Parts: sequence; C-alpha cells; structure tokens
Amino acid sequence: MKKINIGIIGLGTVGSGVVALLHQNSEMISRRTNCELTIKSILVNDITRKREHINEKYLPLITDKESVLFDDIQILVEVMGTIDKARYYIEKALKKGIHVVTANKDLMAKYGGELLNLAEKYKVSLSFEASVCGGIPIIDMIKTSFQGNRISSILGILNGTTNYILTLMEEKNVPFKSALKQAQKLGYAESNPANDIEGVDAARKIAILASMAFNTKVPIEKVHVEGITKVDIQDILYAKDLGYRIKLLGMAKEKDGFLKVQVNPVFIPLSHPLANINDVYNGVYLEGDFFGPSMVYGLGAGSFPTASSIVGDIIAASKAIDNKTYSWCTCFRDLKIRDVMETHSNFYIRMTVNDKPGVLASISSILGSHDVSIYSVVQKKSHEGHAELVIITHKVQEASMYDSITVLSSLSVINKIESIIRVEDEEQ
Amino acid sequence: MKKINIGIIGLGTVGSGVVALLHQNSEMISRRTNCELTIKSILVNDITRKREHINEKYLPLITDKESVLFDDIQILVEVMGTIDKARYYIEKALKKGIHVVTANKDLMAKYGGELLNLAEKYKVSLSFEASVCGGIPIIDMIKTSFQGNRISSILGILNGTTNYILTLMEEKNVPFKSALKQAQKLGYAESNPANDIEGVDAARKIAILASMAFNTKVPIEKVHVEGITKVDIQDILYAKDLGYRIKLLGMAKEKDGFLKVQVNPVFIPLSHPLANINDVYNGVYLEGDFFGPSMVYGLGAGSFPTASSIVGDIIAASKAIDNKTYSWCTCFRDLKIRDVMETHSNFYIRMTVNDKPGVLASISSILGSHDVSIYSVVQKKSHEGHAELVIITHKVQEASMYDSITVLSSLSVINKIESIIRVEDEEQ
Repeated sequence: MKKINIGIIGLGTVGSGVVALLHQNSEMISRRTNCELTIKSILVNDITRKREHINEKYLPLITDKESVLFDDIQILVEVMGTIDKARYYIEKALKKGIHVVTANKDLMAKYGGELLNLAEKYKVSLSFEASVCGGIPIIDMIKTSFQGNRISSILGILNGTTNYILTLMEEKNVPFKSALKQAQKLGYAESNPANDIEGVDAARKIAILASMAFNTKVPIEKVHVEGITKVDIQDILYAKDLGYRIKLLGMAKEKDGFLKVQVNPVFIPLSHPLANINDVYNGVYLEGDFFGPSMVYGLGAGSFPTASSIVGDIIAASKAIDNKTYSWCTCFRDLKIRDVMETHSNFYIRMTVNDKPGVLASISSILGSHDVSIYSVVQKKSHEGHAELVIITHKVQEASMYDSITVLSSLSVINKIESIIRVEDEEQ
Repeated sequence: MKKINIGIIGLGTVGSGVVALLHQNSEMISRRTNCELTIKSILVNDITRKREHINEKYLPLITDKESVLFDDIQILVEVMGTIDKARYYIEKALKKGIHVVTANKDLMAKYGGELLNLAEKYKVSLSFEASVCGGIPIIDMIKTSFQGNRISSILGILNGTTNYILTLMEEKNVPFKSALKQAQKLGYAESNPANDIEGVDAARKIAILASMAFNTKVPIEKVHVEGITKVDIQDILYAKDLGYRIKLLGMAKEKDGFLKVQVNPVFIPLSHPLANINDVYNGVYLEGDFFGPSMVYGLGAGSFPTASSIVGDIIAASKAIDNKTYSWCTCFRDLKIRDVMETHSNFYIRMTVNDKPGVLASISSILGSHDVSIYSVVQKKSHEGHAELVIITHKVQEASMYDSITVLSSLSVINKIESIIRVEDEEQ
C-alpha cells in the first residue's frame, strides 16, 4: 500500500473537520484507494487551544517551524485562510514539488491563475474544490465530468448565510435586520456580516467558477455585485404573489463572445430548480451544449462538508503523485466581460405613486420612450391617496432601464421608487 | 500535444452523439486537456444506414473487422448495447491493454465486478459514467469527490420514461395507459416498455450505484423491484392532497450491517428535493457522513447527455494512458442484502369499505394486532354504500404489513384493497 504524508496549515473550523474525517474514515479510505494517508504535521498559532471534533493531544501540532512543516510530506493542505500568508506557504510548497490542496477562495479568486502557472512549472497539482460551495463537488463537475461541453450559463446560490436570511424573511415574514440577527445568533453569519450580505463572498465564488467553465480570467473587480441589504419584505411578498422567489444568485453567461458575470438578488420562477433551495443550502444550476441543464445541491459551508471536499482533493492529489499529473491554468481564452450597463435583463420595479387617473399612462409612456417594454403591471393597496405599483419589464438594456428610472424619479406623481430587482425568466 | 486514437463499437443514438460531440467540440477539448482525440474506426452492422446528427460519409466506418477495430487505438468506446457481444469486445480490448469506456448498464450491473478485475489484471481503466443517469456525473461524484465519506443512503429518480409518465398523470389527470401511449408517441418509451415501467432499468442502475457507494456486490436479482403499472390516478391525487408526490425511486440504504436495495413507487413529501424533479429529468439524492445531504439533477438519457458523460470518461481515460492508472473492483465489503420482507417502511393503503359504523374500528384493531400503527386516516367519497379509506402507517416491518393485509382482505366489510405504496418521510 502506498503511504502519503500530509502537512496541514491551520486548525480552525475547516482544519478540525479534515482531521476528524481522516481519523474517522481512514481505514475505509485506505481500502478504497489503496493508499494510506498520514497527518505528519499541523502548523498552528496556538498549541494549547481547545478544538472542535478532535482531541488535539494526539496531533502532531507545530508552531511556525517551516522546516518541520515541509519535511517529508507529499501533500500540503492549506486551511488557514487569509491571502498573503497562505500564498506564501502555498508557493513555497509548490516550488518544493509538494502537491497542494486549498479551501481558500479569496486567494484563488485573486491569484488562482498565477498559482496554477506555478504548479505547472513545478509539475505538481493544486486543487481547490473546497473553495467554492463547501461540500458540493461543482469544480470537479466542471473540470472533469462536463469538460467535453461548451458551458453557456451558470446560476448559483453560492452563499448559505444570505440564502438562510432570505428564506427566513419569506417563511417567518420578518424584515432583513431581524433575519440577519437570527443568522448571527445561529452562527450562520459573522459579527461583521458584510462579505456575505453585500455579495462579496458569492462574487469570489462565481469568479472562480466562471474562469474554469469559460476558460477565461475573471478579475474579481469586473464582477458586478449587489447584496441583499436592500431587499424588502414587501418585495418578497410580491415575488410570491407573482410566482417567483427572491434568491441571491451568482451568474455567469457567455453570449456573442462576451461574458456577463454578476451577483445580485434575482426573482426566479418557483418552477426553477434553484427556487426550492432554501435555508443554508447552496446549489449550482448550469447548462452545457451536450449535457443540457443540470443542477447540484448541498451544504456550501461548515466544518464537515468542507472537509469532505478537501479529502476528495487529497485523494486525487495522492494519485497525482505517482502519475506525475500536474495542474495548469486553463484560461486560454480572453473573453471580454460586459459592463453591467450594457447587459440586458428583465426587471421588477416597485414604486409608490399618487392614486390618480393617468398616472400609469405617464409612467408607461416614459418607460416606452426608453425602450422599456412592460410585461405585467400590478397596482395594489391604495391608502392616503397613494398606490403601490409593481411593474415587470421585458428584457431591456440596463442603461436604458436606469435612464428611464432617472426620468421617472423626477415625476411629481411618483412618490418613491422603492425597489428594482432583476428577473431571471427564460419564458418571458 | 498528446494524440489518442479511439475505436467505437456501435453508431446508434448514443454513438452518434459521441461522434457529434467529438466533432463539434474537438478544438476546445484539445485546448482544455492538451490532448488530441481522433476517431480511428467505428464498428457498425450496416455502413449504408442514415444516422442522426452526423454525416456518416466522412466517418471511418468498418463492419466486423476486429483486427482493424483494435488496430492502433488506445481507447475503445462500447455503445452497441447487448450483454454478451459487448462483453466479448470489452474483454478483448482490456486484454490488449486498451482502455475501455462503456455506457452499458445491463452489462455493468451483471458483470461489472469481473470486468473491473480484468481491467486491474491488464492495468487499464474501465469507465462507465454513462451507464447510470446519462448526463449526470453521479458515478464520478461517488467514486472521486465523495470518496472520503461513508455514504448512508441513495435515493434516485433513475428512469426518465417513468418519471415523465408519473408527471403527465399528475399534471394532466390522465390514467397510466394514456400517459404511457403519450410517452411512446414522443419517443420517451419504447414500443415494448416493460424494462422501464416494470422498474428493471432503474434496478440495474441502483445496483451499480449501490455497489460503488457501499463497496459491496449487489446482485441484480437481490434488488426488490416494483414498477409503476399499478399506480392509479386516484393514488396520485391522494398523494397531492396529503402533501406528497409519487415517484419511482431506486433506493439503497445501509443499516446495522445490512443493505436495503429496492425500486418501487414511493410517496415523497413535496418539500423533498426529489419531489420537484419532473418530466424526463433524473435526480439522485444521497447522504454522507461528512458532506451531508446532496442532490444532483439533469437529463438521464438521450443522445447528447449520454455523449457528454462518455466524452468525460474518454478524457479521463486519455489521462490514464500516460499515468498508467487502472481500474479495479472496489467491492471489498460483503454486506448482506436484507430480504424485503424484513425491511421496515411507512405505507399508504387505499381501500374501499362498506360505509358503516364500526368499520374503521375493526380495521385498526386488525392492523394493531399486527404491530401496524396508524399515522393518519382519511375517509372520502361515500357512494352506493362504499367509502374510500386512506391510511398512512408508521414504520412497520414489511412482513407484518402483508400479514395484516391478508387478514384485512378476508373481512366482509372491506370491498377491495386498492393500493399499497411505500412512504418515504423522515419526519414521521
């Protein structure tokens, strides 16, 4: 039986999960793979800290001793997080001919290309399944199973925290702020939740997925990002009435040689497979020219699901050692990323207006003069002379949409433009 | 760039899809994999036959010339179907050190173990992603991404034909026979639909998946199989009323050292991810000790989706050539398969009874004396002195269930036991 030694950097939530998995299932893994995996060293900041799932007493913990860390290991598992320090260790390992497994999406979204080039240069593998959607093997699917296909679109619920918040808002009819507090109480959201609720976390993930599926670099700063902080409970209720559900989606679509990549709240039809993915679950829906539409769903974060993906990568790396298989950057195309103002979407617009005859006529005339064509209109809840008007548009260019909104805002009969949310509906 | 020659046996629906894919996406595949795939020879029965998607004039078609077929190829793609003839060619290829990709579930369900042993002996790979659920990479997920996990259960909608029929029955309120005719008209069901509607096709697929996930041989004759021919439109309507949907599921679960493997119609709660997979789509829901619950969904049959999986396997095999990676049978456990009479399930029972006082009391007393405990009862539609009674039970051993049914059938107040369908509901 082949023997492989592993070094691990970091022993937080994810690192502890990896150790727990390797302890619990090591015999089964050996029999499945004909390979014995041994944890040789674990680099930590604090040897005395208590940790989840594991008894740290029996672990080969070390602190800041690089020579020991890289000594006699064939695979390095980076689960420390951060960008610069993690990059330092990963580069060092690759240069020593050590295969690397990382769960670091911030690093991969920013320096993935460079690190893969380095892996190619030193003929080792660099795997990062756990960097996107925890326990869901979406990177393996794109990289191996579906690689005969031209992928045309990816739509993903890529962040469990925001999906939990949106689910709670809909199911318990609570406003955003209370839902966020509840998510924080349950440990789903951090005390500083900005990365999740502002869509930054999802943006990094869609950048990684899009670069792999479309074989082109997707700089994170080119991804248009809107979070869920402006989603009102009122919008959630209207969505339901109209047969939709609001989800924070990461989206990447290729059309006419351009890539559209964005993260924002979206109305999706209840019949869409992603509409039924609730709570902290993640899901990715993608379309290819041969496999057609496909979706994968599961837990996108957490100690154990993330460990599952990391160990899948460790086993793949252990095979790569014998095979001399190595990774390289597959971004051989150079697709332009379309500016969001040039993209086309359907929109949901909610506004409060004066409840007078002729108001709808003036609004539709302004929209029409900006090429914004109306798909449906609902008018509701007239009180104190105000009515709520909900419009869903046909596909329209983002720039025209916002030009028309500027003009509408200046109309005296319009009290307030309350919300504007994109609508993803192939049937329109 | 590495050059790989491929031989193909069979050029029907699936074979034509493979050829179409390799023609259409060959340049992209070369750039992604650094490998040039060439179709060297295609063994067919009839060179003159017209084929879908492809212009057969430019193809290297050959008939029954084995020496030419195996000449200068590194990968053989078997898409001819049948068991014995396909096995003959595959064994011959493996013995010659040629890597094999097959879509043949009948063959793999019956001789998978032997063929994998042969692949190990001759140090070549044998891949069969396309044999289960067409374009869905469920075998890759189990075999690679999830291999650090102990899988505890697999539930799958594994047959598109029956899923289409059940969807049509529910949505259009048509009986089984009309729905079958419609499926045949659209080409989803064959003129002899027995393998699909009797559950045999799904049984082969769950046998393959279970053997891989639980690392144990699952002889096809040990899988308990019931098809959908007895599912009545009335049951579909009751399911809907009670918050369920009827699906034909392939199921495999490990418990206490035993494996439960069966195919039968099941009531699943509408909130279950599989409940929303309709029409010809397939989906597989599985649970592992680390990744948790996960589901993958897509097209389970058809020329193009199946070709997608075959080409994924071809690319993997092309890597195996350099790496000297080979396949072996991973059935190192010897789990006993529990006899269906010893398994426990929840049941839905529909019967017509005399609409008299005391009837429910005698029925529940008989059920109770056989340890069948009632979860809920609905009584409906009394006409001509008859009422329809629907009972959902708590978990009960199959043998007790059928003993109680035998006694119930002899009761004079019971007109007819109309249907008995298992219920999959974790919450009960």
